[in-house]
Amino acid sequence: MTVELEILRVWEGRRERAVDSVTEEGVFTIYLGDEEFVSMLCTPRHIRELSVGFLFSSGIIHSFSEIKKHMINEKSSTVHIDLAYPQRITYTSGCGRGVVLEVEMKPAERIQSPMRILAQKILYLMHEFQNKSSEFQRTGSVHSACFSDGERILIFHEDIGRHNAIDKVIGEALIKGLDMTDAILLTTGRISTEIVHKVLRARVPIMCSRSAPTYEAVQLCREKNMTLIGFARGKRMNLYSGEERIAQE
Amino acid sequence: MTVELEILRVWEGRRERAVDSVTEEGVFTIYLGDEEFVSMLCTPRHIRELSVGFLFSSGIIHSFSEIKKHMINEKSSTVHIDLAYPQRITYTSGCGRGVVLEVEMKPAERIQSPMRILAQKILYLMHEFQNKSSEFQRTGSVHSACFSDGERILIFHEDIGRHNAIDKVIGEALIKGLDMTDAILLTTGRISTEIVHKVLRARVPIMCSRSAPTYEAVQLCREKNMTLIGFARGKRMNLYSGEERIAQE
Repeated sequence: MTVELEILRVWEGRRERAVDSVTEEGVFTIYLGDEEFVSMLCTPRHIRELSVGFLFSSGIIHSFSEIKKHMINEKSSTVHIDLAYPQRITYTSGCGRGVVLEVEMKPAERIQSPMRILAQKILYLMHEFQNKSSEFQRTGSVHSACFSDGERILIFHEDIGRHNAIDKVIGEALIKGLDMTDAILLTTGRISTEIVHKVLRARVPIMCSRSAPTYEAVQLCREKNMTLIGFARGKRMNLYSGEERIAQE
Repeated sequence: MTVELEILRVWEGRRERAVDSVTEEGVFTIYLGDEEFVSMLCTPRHIRELSVGFLFSSGIIHSFSEIKKHMINEKSSTVHIDLAYPQRITYTSGCGRGVVLEVEMKPAERIQSPMRILAQKILYLMHEFQNKSSEFQRTGSVHSACFSDGERILIFHEDIGRHNAIDKVIGEALIKGLDMTDAILLTTGRISTEIVHKVLRARVPIMCSRSAPTYEAVQLCREKNMTLIGFARGKRMNLYSGEERIAQE
């Protein structure tokens, strides 16, 4: 999903015609039953995974089996979904919300997972993860996310939105029936509370980013006993929460 | 708006207690008249600029004078705004839109600005701009945006969201009555069509980012004759659109 474009490159005062790879974006609209639910600016690929993951992490569905019908129309950029229990959806606020989608959701419980992993294994996985992101290397403009079982990368996705990349890996895990309660989520993106809420809902015990978390994201992870690692780059990382899951060598 | 947190730092196999600066996030809800309009996850600072900029770049207002009353309540994280012409707002789609806010908006006209600037001046401004972002240097987790007149930086803002940082500089420009039609917008964030639409609406002729644009963003800039520069770092940059405004030395 990259396009080659002719551009002008300026470099130390010189100018030259060059070809640059840029990433594509698209807008997909999800309909629940007959009702327009949400439009998402995204990398127009793996829309099935994205829509399942988004419905799950927004609290609309609790498992993949709640999706009765799932039709993706690439041409019209629409996704039509029929739910098994459509009555569950309740909007808590008015029209036009541009940023935060609110659905009645039970607060996430504390994570009890006894999972342990070596710090050096995390750094090894981050290294593998970064190498996989070929589109980022070409275009510099996508985020990546993946699930690992601690040994290797199981599910990997890219998207221009860091939220979407995470929704795509959660969506694929749900579709494939992967147990997320002993998985590690790796991401390139910054960690805000929105991201933590998504990952908490999937009961993932360990999240690791090459970027920074916000204060509120750290507090939420500490409260919910989720392991949060930030700035995982090269041979170093910061443990913000749940450090007992990261074993010493 | 940063907080010091005690964390555990892992580095080449060693572990040490350390203090890390992390940025804060907050959610502000904008009410238009009595109606809840939008909730924004943001850096909870310069909410006046953010809300004015967001209303403008979403097509709700056309100038600052259309805001009759503007009350910010830091405690309840709410912004109450009364508009001079509230009848102008029309929602084109249903409830629960999580990402794209749709308001009836005239398509932006082509940018006619005869503005010219030297390539080396752009690189100098980008250097100044990057140096200003002290919070990014401390926390690694905010985006910045600024307006320049080609000589110096006039308005500068930071936010955890790249959209918000741009809305804040547009908001301050509107409040101060700065003429944006001969300004340069610099940003740290990736350029998607959502970002181009915001900047087009402000009739800004030149936008420059240290990051990458999407294909659709480049096409939109070419169609609207907006100058788009990407990957402006050190001594190089890519001209994706409107290169005639960037003069050779």
